[in-house]
Amino acid sequence: MKTSEIRQNKATKQWVIYAPARRKRPRDFRKTKPEREYPDYDKKCPFCPGNEHMLPQVIAETSDMKKAWQVRTVPNKFPSLTPYGDLKRFNRGIYVGMKGYGNHEVVIETPVHNRQIGRMSVKEVSFIIEMYHKRYTDLMKRHENMMVIIFRNHGAQAGTSLIHPHSQIIATGMVPHHVRWREEEALHYFDEWGRCVFCDILEYETQYAKRIIYENRYFIAFVPYAAEVPFEIWIMPVKHKADFRDISDTEKANLASALKTVLERLHRKLNNPDYNYIINTSAQYRAKEPQLHWYLQILPRLMTRAGFEIGSGININPSIPEEDAKFLKS
Amino acid sequence: MKTSEIRQNKATKQWVIYAPARRKRPRDFRKTKPEREYPDYDKKCPFCPGNEHMLPQVIAETSDMKKAWQVRTVPNKFPSLTPYGDLKRFNRGIYVGMKGYGNHEVVIETPVHNRQIGRMSVKEVSFIIEMYHKRYTDLMKRHENMMVIIFRNHGAQAGTSLIHPHSQIIATGMVPHHVRWREEEALHYFDEWGRCVFCDILEYETQYAKRIIYENRYFIAFVPYAAEVPFEIWIMPVKHKADFRDISDTEKANLASALKTVLERLHRKLNNPDYNYIINTSAQYRAKEPQLHWYLQILPRLMTRAGFEIGSGININPSIPEEDAKFLKS
Repeated sequence: MKTSEIRQNKATKQWVIYAPARRKRPRDFRKTKPEREYPDYDKKCPFCPGNEHMLPQVIAETSDMKKAWQVRTVPNKFPSLTPYGDLKRFNRGIYVGMKGYGNHEVVIETPVHNRQIGRMSVKEVSFIIEMYHKRYTDLMKRHENMMVIIFRNHGAQAGTSLIHPHSQIIATGMVPHHVRWREEEALHYFDEWGRCVFCDILEYETQYAKRIIYENRYFIAFVPYAAEVPFEIWIMPVKHKADFRDISDTEKANLASALKTVLERLHRKLNNPDYNYIINTSAQYRAKEPQLHWYLQILPRLMTRAGFEIGSGININPSIPEEDAKFLKS
Repeated sequence: MKTSEIRQNKATKQWVIYAPARRKRPRDFRKTKPEREYPDYDKKCPFCPGNEHMLPQVIAETSDMKKAWQVRTVPNKFPSLTPYGDLKRFNRGIYVGMKGYGNHEVVIETPVHNRQIGRMSVKEVSFIIEMYHKRYTDLMKRHENMMVIIFRNHGAQAGTSLIHPHSQIIATGMVPHHVRWREEEALHYFDEWGRCVFCDILEYETQYAKRIIYENRYFIAFVPYAAEVPFEIWIMPVKHKADFRDISDTEKANLASALKTVLERLHRKLNNPDYNYIINTSAQYRAKEPQLHWYLQILPRLMTRAGFEIGSGININPSIPEEDAKFLKS
């Protein structure tokens, strides 16, 4: 691709501009400073073993064979939402508002202060996936929760200041506009083609092959055709499932392999970039619909969104998805 | 407001979470480091007078009475889009793509290297608004341009590295998804109420008064009810107009006053925060529709978007709009 090009995300219809005049080579996105080394234990860290008194409560815990805890879920100490009150909308003059009802939890991924996912064993990552699934399932049992979003912020550019490896889970009492938008586009596609748009993307990517960076029998990890940012990666289950709740035990283990491999590669190739990941899944009551397909989306934070991106929703990406995939695979 | 609350943007239907547990007082958003002072001239700056050989071309220029240039528009040296080729969509397997057709221009706002809008005279700011209007009108004459977005990035957090005051204009050959979304919501409102949603917002805000930070006969500047970020500000024309093209000469001068005052206040109260602003206006062929209303949106960059915001489109705002407005007015 020598000239500038614009691509459309088939699932959401968002346009992305690929700007060769602003292009960097994939390796130019590497951090240049050597990574700071953190200790494996920090006595001031609320997530390190022995500091349980700094935690408000333990909601759930996974232990290994020796009964030492491996993964823990705790309430967020500074919650965005709390499970009090109700979901009633009220008027504020001409406007609509509601109470800050919801749940905000933190998944402590390991007792070891500096052990990031890419460096864990597959077994350790499996514990995290199992915890995600357990909390997701529990939170979705409450009919007040319309949406459960599992996400991970890694590094200051991605919005976290805590070193100790952790993810977060937020359950909301309303379906976010962005989720409805993805669902609507998927429904239009289903009505036109009679198929899940994500299944069609998977089939095409498998055949095209140049954007795939990892695959096992149950998951395919690829840089999407219309990647919003350099090195965006989708990890998608091969088997059609709308809802993350329906992940099988075999799939959990295979997702752990995929996630570990992909994050380890990002870490090694780009020198520990900051990133977010999100599990995109179906809203409450949509779990059985045939047009939806859950997946894990990784967004490295190597660019700054500016006025154009904010105003239009169109990202300008200086990086080419096929080249990014090749670089990550090499 | 003591407990957590969720508000909905009446125009776009986006939800925003107001999280008291994460709240800061307005003044805590101030930059703590003293502002770095820049010189009024930099011999290496391509936008400073005498360095015209570093510019690819001058597209338009405004001069003062002494015939010295005041505001200049030049092509972006690293354009995201270029006016070559056509708008034909093509297939790439199952995907849609198109050439990178469009325009990408830079408005150099002043010959003085360190003269930010808040410190300019109203007359100087008027020159900038006039240039925006001139370029907008010219670019919209080309039927290939479906949307023209005028925006400003101030500071590194907002995506700029150039000190010399400048804005940018990008014209695209497709209507961005976000713009269609705003238009659709406005159309639904119009069909239900028979009025422009933005006119109703203006009427309500004028009556409520507590979120207004500045007003003159033609413009009202206020922190919106569902501000996405701390200190978000909308500067909205009182008179209903869908299209920025239809701004009158009197309105231009009054917008200059409003913009200067608001940016000067942000600068003073928050110690020169990074920010983006965007002129939200109608897409090509929608200019005469009764449901749309252009406005200028200012978004200070005091927060980092993390995984939840990216995945859900719901922002978590630790700041309360009424308090932000009060702080900016005081």
